[in-house]
Amino acid sequence: MPLWKIYHPERSFSAQDKASIAERITGIYRSLPKFYVGVVFQEVAKDSFFIGGEAADDFVRIWVDHIARQFDDENLKSRFLAAVNQLLSPFITDRGLRWEMHVDETPFSLWTIQGLRPPLPNSDAEKRWRAESRPTPY
Amino acid sequence: MPLWKIYHPERSFSAQDKASIAERITGIYRSLPKFYVGVVFQEVAKDSFFIGGEAADDFVRIWVDHIARQFDDENLKSRFLAAVNQLLSPFITDRGLRWEMHVDETPFSLWTIQGLRPPLPNSDAEKRWRAESRPTPY
Amino acid sequence: MPLWKIYHPERSFSAQDKASIAERITGIYRSLPKFYVGVVFQEVAKDSFFIGGEAADDFVRIWVDHIARQFDDENLKSRFLAAVNQLLSPFITDRGLRWEMHVDETPFSLWTIQGLRPPLPNSDAEKRWRAESRPTPY
Repeated sequence: MPLWKIYHPERSFSAQDKASIAERITGIYRSLPKFYVGVVFQEVAKDSFFIGGEAADDFVRIWVDHIARQFDDENLKSRFLAAVNQLLSPFITDRGLRWEMHVDETPFSLWTIQGLRPPLPNSDAEKRWRAESRPTPY
Repeated sequence: MPLWKIYHPERSFSAQDKASIAERITGIYRSLPKFYVGVVFQEVAKDSFFIGGEAADDFVRIWVDHIARQFDDENLKSRFLAAVNQLLSPFITDRGLRWEMHVDETPFSLWTIQGLRPPLPNSDAEKRWRAESRPTPY
Repeated sequence: MPLWKIYHPERSFSAQDKASIAERITGIYRSLPKFYVGVVFQEVAKDSFFIGGEAADDFVRIWVDHIARQFDDENLKSRFLAAVNQLLSPFITDRGLRWEMHVDETPFSLWTIQGLRPPLPNSDAEKRWRAESRPTPY
């Protein structure tokens, strides 16, 4: 958690772009162990990517699974979505690409890292995972 | 919303097939702005695609995220699933392919298009987006 | 249901590995018709795969949708996750790869196989599907 999946047109992002985007996304989740954040980029050819029934080579479609935390507050959601918008703009909107994103929230209790069930939010064990940047038995 | 992801065997769909399928899928969501409908096709090689533990090159696996609307009625679900069945049959069942599909419903409040949070279902703003076929501030 | 999606580094799994993994995963779901179990492997290049903001070529990221059954018991979840851990270890941990997995649970009523809505859990029709290993009208 979170797992970001980014469908994008062919050749829209360089390796450096992808590294920058992943780094910025990771930065949003400051309160989590860094290694919780996964980002996968996937090129989609124009003839396999349709928006509104029309082939699209200018569209970035992002979908995210949140596991470690659930938003329980409308204000937090707005701030999160605004932060995402800001961090992605230089790579998407500013280059004339269109985009859409949605987030799902999936069960905390059906999640493992290295076979371990991650510690509860804000627990001492989670703080240790965050400080050490790796999952260890607790 | 909706986002359709279609895993299919190599060479099972031509570019024209894919365009036709995407157009038909988009047609199901008449009440939504057209550009809400995203469809992504992805070829999966036989050695990476397993059904029942056996490599499959005759299987189409579709999974969909619904965001803009949630079904609150069993009857609507049945009609939706029947409509999907009908529109896909010529491309799947009639060609001897097997298939499976499932839909998840994800939170409306964690969704943006062009950085904007889409207007509420059936609101005036949504009607405008639908009529103009593009997202604009409201 | 279930649908397993396995993102893995390039060349980390041979065709034989993938067949073995898919067979073991299928074995976990003994009580279901075998053909319910779908497994899709997808290679992700190092420059498109980020964990904690860093490019990763040693990480397996698995995400699963469960549809036919929902866990209603913490004990069952633990046993399921432990079983997964055990079956995957020879292919992942024992080879020095890192990994993470999460499961989502999606609505039973928005699911079809060959255009049919699958029978209720543990119903006679489901038992028949399981015994015959194929979906038929009921």
